Amino acid sequence: MKKLFAMLALVLAAPLMLQSNVALAADTEKTKQVVYHFNKSDMNTIKAGLRNATNHVNSPSGPETAIEIVVHGGGIKMMTEARQDPQLAAAIDNLKANGVDFKVCANTLRGKGLEVSDLYYTDESDIVPSGVAYLADQQMEGWAYIHP
Amino acid sequence: MKKLFAMLALVLAAPLMLQSNVALAADTEKTKQVVYHFNKSDMNTIKAGLRNATNHVNSPSGPETAIEIVVHGGGIKMMTEARQDPQLAAAIDNLKANGVDFKVCANTLRGKGLEVSDLYYTDESDIVPSGVAYLADQQMEGWAYIHP
Amino acid sequence: MKKLFAMLALVLAAPLMLQSNVALAADTEKTKQVVYHFNKSDMNTIKAGLRNATNHVNSPSGPETAIEIVVHGGGIKMMTEARQDPQLAAAIDNLKANGVDFKVCANTLRGKGLEVSDLYYTDESDIVPSGVAYLADQQMEGWAYIHP
Repeated sequence: MKKLFAMLALVLAAPLMLQSNVALAADTEKTKQVVYHFNKSDMNTIKAGLRNATNHVNSPSGPETAIEIVVHGGGIKMMTEARQDPQLAAAIDNLKANGVDFKVCANTLRGKGLEVSDLYYTDESDIVPSGVAYLADQQMEGWAYIHP
Repeated sequence: MKKLFAMLALVLAAPLMLQSNVALAADTEKTKQVVYHFNKSDMNTIKAGLRNATNHVNSPSGPETAIEIVVHGGGIKMMTEARQDPQLAAAIDNLKANGVDFKVCANTLRGKGLEVSDLYYTDESDIVPSGVAYLADQQMEGWAYIHP
Repeated sequence: MKKLFAMLALVLAAPLMLQSNVALAADTEKTKQVVYHFNKSDMNTIKAGLRNATNHVNSPSGPETAIEIVVHGGGIKMMTEARQDPQLAAAIDNLKANGVDFKVCANTLRGKGLEVSDLYYTDESDIVPSGVAYLADQQMEGWAYIHP
């Protein structure tokens, strides 16, 4: 159904689109989008979730799917533990090398007294003001949602 | 993408909208919508979920986001425990004061032999026939979904 | 909002729809769609999730809602245990008799060394390449998502 709307939009809304060419160009490469929600501190849950995302990348839908991993609350343990856990770090590296983006909640960092520099392979540009608001906002833009 | 559709709808569907002015008026205030799914009885999960919703309200997206907390199954413990737990009650009060609505599953009340009067600060108008059906129905209307 | 789009689509996209009559015919029967995500091996979580789906079928929205249960990771225990657990098997039977479809992740079977014949009441046609990709792909087609 969403594809039908996309078709409709392209056919009918051309005159309205002066400022959104860039976003639409990206859409033609990645026609599917999904946010993964990581908020549990249990390491088995975290590692299973990363395996899920890796399987998603390697699935038939992988090449056309933009994937973002949104980390907040207890899930932040993924980014702190990865500094001492080479297997965990490798899973994150591999996902990043395949174009998966990580987004980290600023509220969580503030609440736990963490700095960006305490997190594995995280940049200021990966920080979002609120992890949960980001998850909802992306869905409002048409992204799917998965809670591993 | 959904914003594009909304624009399209406004431009093209005007003649069809005679009866939906009220709903659209509300949409101009709250352009984003999200249901939170509370179905776990673990009190740490419940309290973390309420903190998530509070952070969502206080996020940059908060003012434009309608938030509903849908309670069923084990999650009903939030509404029974809040009668004895002032901190929990205060978190619920604060969310309600910020416009967050709570919806409680009638199936759960029946299954657990609970009355509306057994629940903290709940009204008959907060009861929905099925919590899970409500979560899906709201998504069909364009709401995002978050499982804390 | 999605209903409005559906109306718009019907009004405006008629010339584009030569090949999608069948899908649209099915849509007129089931106007709502939801995928349930089963990935936990805990049997209480599995049984609660099956009760949720059963309540969904029996809810006022049930008759107009297509429901699929997507099983992967630890959730596969539902399909292996049901061979020895008559109560679990009956819950699955009942859902199937009410038109609920089950989808099982091929990655999970490969990872755990399981065959289709090791699973309760599962057919080759129920297997999808990746459970998580399937959950996202269905949402891209407009399905709601519930994680019990």
